[in-house]
Amino acid sequence: MASLFPASDRCWLGGPGSVELAHWQLEVDGADDGLVTIARDHALLVRRHGGAEAGYGADGGASGMLRVEQVAENGPPEGFEILTPEPGRVVVRAADRRGLVAGFFHVWNRGPGAVSAGRHRPATAIRMLNDWDNMVVDAMGSVERGYAGPSILFSGGEMVDDLSRFRDYARLLASVGINALCLNNVNVNDVETTLVTDRLDDVARAAAVLREYGIACYVAVNYAAPLTVGDVDTADPLDDGVRAWWRATAERVWGRIGDFGGFVVKADSENRPGPFRYDRTHVDGANMLAEAVAPHGGTVFWRCFVYDNHQDWRDRSTDRARAAADHFAPFDGQFADNVVLQVKFGPIDFQTREGVSPLLTRLRATHVAIELQITQEYTGQQKHVCYLPELWRDALDTEIGWETDGGPRLYETVGVHTGRHNGFVAVSNVGADPNWTGHPFAQANLYAFGRLAWEPSLTAEELAHEWLRATYAVPDAARDELAALLLGSWQTYEAYTAPLGVGFMVTPHTHYGPSVDGYEYTPWGTYHFADRDGVGVDRTVATGSGMIGLYPPAMAARYETLDACPDALLLFFHHVPYGHVLHSGSTVIQHIYDSHFAGVEQGEAMIRRWHGVRESLPSEVSAVVDVRFAEQLRSAIEWRDQVNTYFWRKSGVPDARGRLIHR
Amino acid sequence: MASLFPASDRCWLGGPGSVELAHWQLEVDGADDGLVTIARDHALLVRRHGGAEAGYGADGGASGMLRVEQVAENGPPEGFEILTPEPGRVVVRAADRRGLVAGFFHVWNRGPGAVSAGRHRPATAIRMLNDWDNMVVDAMGSVERGYAGPSILFSGGEMVDDLSRFRDYARLLASVGINALCLNNVNVNDVETTLVTDRLDDVARAAAVLREYGIACYVAVNYAAPLTVGDVDTADPLDDGVRAWWRATAERVWGRIGDFGGFVVKADSENRPGPFRYDRTHVDGANMLAEAVAPHGGTVFWRCFVYDNHQDWRDRSTDRARAAADHFAPFDGQFADNVVLQVKFGPIDFQTREGVSPLLTRLRATHVAIELQITQEYTGQQKHVCYLPELWRDALDTEIGWETDGGPRLYETVGVHTGRHNGFVAVSNVGADPNWTGHPFAQANLYAFGRLAWEPSLTAEELAHEWLRATYAVPDAARDELAALLLGSWQTYEAYTAPLGVGFMVTPHTHYGPSVDGYEYTPWGTYHFADRDGVGVDRTVATGSGMIGLYPPAMAARYETLDACPDALLLFFHHVPYGHVLHSGSTVIQHIYDSHFAGVEQGEAMIRRWHGVRESLPSEVSAVVDVRFAEQLRSAIEWRDQVNTYFWRKSGVPDARGRLIHR
Repeated sequence: MASLFPASDRCWLGGPGSVELAHWQLEVDGADDGLVTIARDHALLVRRHGGAEAGYGADGGASGMLRVEQVAENGPPEGFEILTPEPGRVVVRAADRRGLVAGFFHVWNRGPGAVSAGRHRPATAIRMLNDWDNMVVDAMGSVERGYAGPSILFSGGEMVDDLSRFRDYARLLASVGINALCLNNVNVNDVETTLVTDRLDDVARAAAVLREYGIACYVAVNYAAPLTVGDVDTADPLDDGVRAWWRATAERVWGRIGDFGGFVVKADSENRPGPFRYDRTHVDGANMLAEAVAPHGGTVFWRCFVYDNHQDWRDRSTDRARAAADHFAPFDGQFADNVVLQVKFGPIDFQTREGVSPLLTRLRATHVAIELQITQEYTGQQKHVCYLPELWRDALDTEIGWETDGGPRLYETVGVHTGRHNGFVAVSNVGADPNWTGHPFAQANLYAFGRLAWEPSLTAEELAHEWLRATYAVPDAARDELAALLLGSWQTYEAYTAPLGVGFMVTPHTHYGPSVDGYEYTPWGTYHFADRDGVGVDRTVATGSGMIGLYPPAMAARYETLDACPDALLLFFHHVPYGHVLHSGSTVIQHIYDSHFAGVEQGEAMIRRWHGVRESLPSEVSAVVDVRFAEQLRSAIEWRDQVNTYFWRKSGVPDARGRLIHR
Repeated sequence: MASLFPASDRCWLGGPGSVELAHWQLEVDGADDGLVTIARDHALLVRRHGGAEAGYGADGGASGMLRVEQVAENGPPEGFEILTPEPGRVVVRAADRRGLVAGFFHVWNRGPGAVSAGRHRPATAIRMLNDWDNMVVDAMGSVERGYAGPSILFSGGEMVDDLSRFRDYARLLASVGINALCLNNVNVNDVETTLVTDRLDDVARAAAVLREYGIACYVAVNYAAPLTVGDVDTADPLDDGVRAWWRATAERVWGRIGDFGGFVVKADSENRPGPFRYDRTHVDGANMLAEAVAPHGGTVFWRCFVYDNHQDWRDRSTDRARAAADHFAPFDGQFADNVVLQVKFGPIDFQTREGVSPLLTRLRATHVAIELQITQEYTGQQKHVCYLPELWRDALDTEIGWETDGGPRLYETVGVHTGRHNGFVAVSNVGADPNWTGHPFAQANLYAFGRLAWEPSLTAEELAHEWLRATYAVPDAARDELAALLLGSWQTYEAYTAPLGVGFMVTPHTHYGPSVDGYEYTPWGTYHFADRDGVGVDRTVATGSGMIGLYPPAMAARYETLDACPDALLLFFHHVPYGHVLHSGSTVIQHIYDSHFAGVEQGEAMIRRWHGVRESLPSEVSAVVDVRFAEQLRSAIEWRDQVNTYFWRKSGVPDARGRLIHR
């Protein structure tokens, strides 16, 4: 029998030891495209991310057989069918390899006894991760904004020889439905620029590993590559030499890697080069690359995170929240068919809460990937438990009211106008840490992203339970407690950090911990404008930056007035006095105090809950979680005290409940 | 003829080209201790730091002879006598080599035609520089807080082979009277710890260069060295093994370098190890080292920069400004005779203006070196013109009123009680930059430090003119303009940065540029406590930290009350409402606005003045100064706007003169 996955496959989440898959036998059709037995030590997956031992028990299935078979019929790409012809027997059928991989993991993650018959297909074509791994460790580290150790792919300026850990990563991603991976940081430095030229053999090695798991390989490219590593003296997208250089480069890339995915580009963003430097548009830039890769079936992911990061804080006429829509919305419909605009879900940058990006409401004739951030840059950096599906749900469920007030919700718009060449992209959160993600519970965010991208209507509750079931073999009561730890953790994190959607207030550079004025007088466009009278950013059409006017009218109406604007986004859209009364009945200043005291209390409650359930998890997991909870509480208290003191000093309004706020 | 300095001596300040010493011939007594002709290319010194060509002209001396001769008589150490037996002839006489070196440069810096007969001797025995050079580039750079390029002594983890640039540096220091140099950063990392063990040959090479110029060689040591590179399992100063390790180490050091100076120690300071870790006192620590080096005539410089850098910003009972006095004053008289306490002039850390360190008023039976900072960490980082002798003068002229109100002034107390084993230490400001100091005018601070240490009553005006005369061959009118640029530049810098002595308000880590709240909620003990009502640190005995009570009574009385406290130090010692009326007649808030607008205007006036005189300087100098003035003005405007906006937002008080303050 050939193998579905290479025989060298070993553990799942990298922990020590191995657990036998005692009860179920996997049988794979031995057809000539090679689908065969999973080796015994795959069983570790069952414990580590498969949780199946418990699953079997719970379902009462004590033994049985799983069969994976390719069918000749022309089914939907990546789709699969589950059949349960008789008790103790599960069959996965699919028309292509990706469907088989997806179907296999569908069963594997749940345990063969817990699946039912039915057809499955992904709601989106694009389910991609962006790694932010640097080849050469720079000021931002081995993995930019990575909180789980150094890169698993690069070391000392080179791709590592031993890709076994990278293979584990590929399987991890495949198990949750990811079908594309960009290998390197979107901030492409000199060495990484050569990935598509001198280092193509390395890319081919990585692509070969990904291919086994049905994952397309992408590389982030330096827009100015023709100039910096090529022999062209410009990067003007309309220059013939530039176009020829990219065409030749694409020919070499696809000549070496026939099923290569394509390029990811961060252009004219945070000091990266781009078409603006040549007075060209982003249509010019993206379409030039698209033309080069089109003959090979390649795709260009073009990031829309374009804003003025040399803004003058004195200038209140510029609003970073407008930038993506201002730059890209006018060009809707002009991008080539193999260009995907990659748009962050919010208009600022992965804050704990933002309004959704107006650009996402404006692109109706352009392929779009909504970008989320799994790595917890602004949400606790994998030291805090912050279960992100609730944040994502909040954004994705936003009613964008194209025609009238109400639906569709943002997630329902993906691909509505331009078909299935759309989806989700996220920044990955893994590194060389043995548990992959630094905080063991941060795995939940990776898991959930993949599943959400496949099935964007899944609830945070469903995802939490699914991940826990797939990961820890614990009794139902313990799993419920662990789910309760995750659910609400985003709201807790929000409570003790920046209030009412205002964002930032983080330590410059590191983005960890509070610094209320840390970004207030910087060129980054991230301000709260707190003075002795009030706080918040006026983005109204009536008196502010007009950013709200970039939304469809019915949606804009929901934010434009104080009466309509939800409390949670009040300071994102409005500058109000401290005495302004929220819909909740509290004043803004009292809400700041209350939410910060409550946030710490909720953190303490999380820790009490954790102490009640920690014994149910492996000791190496509990030990790491213990340490991180201690840091989370310390940090939450620091946030509470700095924010409360800052606003007391500024407003002069005492806490109505007389709690201790430091002077 | 033998040579006073090695024949390999070459240029002075490192610039290209060479100018002949056309008019004067140097004749040195060819006695067997080797005093001879200075080679022709020494003439560059005349231009670069000797300015003598112009000097000759001005003095009308067209030719002549300089003779340097050692006399047998037992004169004061380092002292010399100038004789002018006939027109066109100058003789330098001294009893030791250091005196000859000092006398030679006395003539050389001024030009032989500009000196008059007389006897000279230094007022202090200690005139030392601390280099902050790291062997291995760490997060703080090649030279910690260095603003003039990488280290000239270390590269790639090793001392450089070619010490010619270091030799130039030694001559530079000797020319201004420096007689001791500590080679490495007081933050001693692993590699530097081995300077006194495995790397002693390197130290010997550097010491040999310094010896030629009469400069004693010191090394900063790691207090925990017995533990980290030795075979002792503790660094307890009372442990016999520790004492034996240091004795043996001292024997090896002095066995290799007979005239080695000794050790500089930063212990129990900013996370460095120290005796506190073993519940011992700093007397225990310092005297243990002193005992080890005493048999060899060695000296221990023990830094008093000891404070809690993990302070809780919520805790207003702790005051960093008390720390040095609290830690060291009780032990006055208990330190060994070869221990010198190295005390920063101010109680915080080299701020633009501080009250003087109370510890300096409390040590009457201990050898003391007053520590200044030539490197402009908090004073513009060698991008801004900030002529420091005015700052130093301000501190050194403070009347410390031991017995009654009034004198002596701080500088007059050096050595009063314990004799001449006292003096000045400063952190150096040089690096591999061709002009040594990044900003060409920052050379003035280095020059002035050495001269002030030799003759602490020199005025800032005298020093400015002396340095200019020694450095640039320009007409008198141009020199007066350049002096006017320097004089007042400290006050200008102060005007546009932190107001009224409150200090800090700088960007964390870099310490460059404004961040009003940057250190407000940190563990560093550097706060301004601004709220909507007022600003400043209450250090009074009556209601504050009591730090003022650490001064002698008459001095304390000058600061304790608002009536007595000088405006310039008001917020250093008091927390006052924004409406508090200064002695100047202005309110605090209006002073903040006025001084910041004035500071920028003064900066603009400096640049206008510069434009009037820039043609008189070599173009390579002017080009560098142009760029730095542009940056200084940009930075000054940023300071003005951030500080004014911050305090307007907080106080709500508008500018009485209606100027533009951003919201």
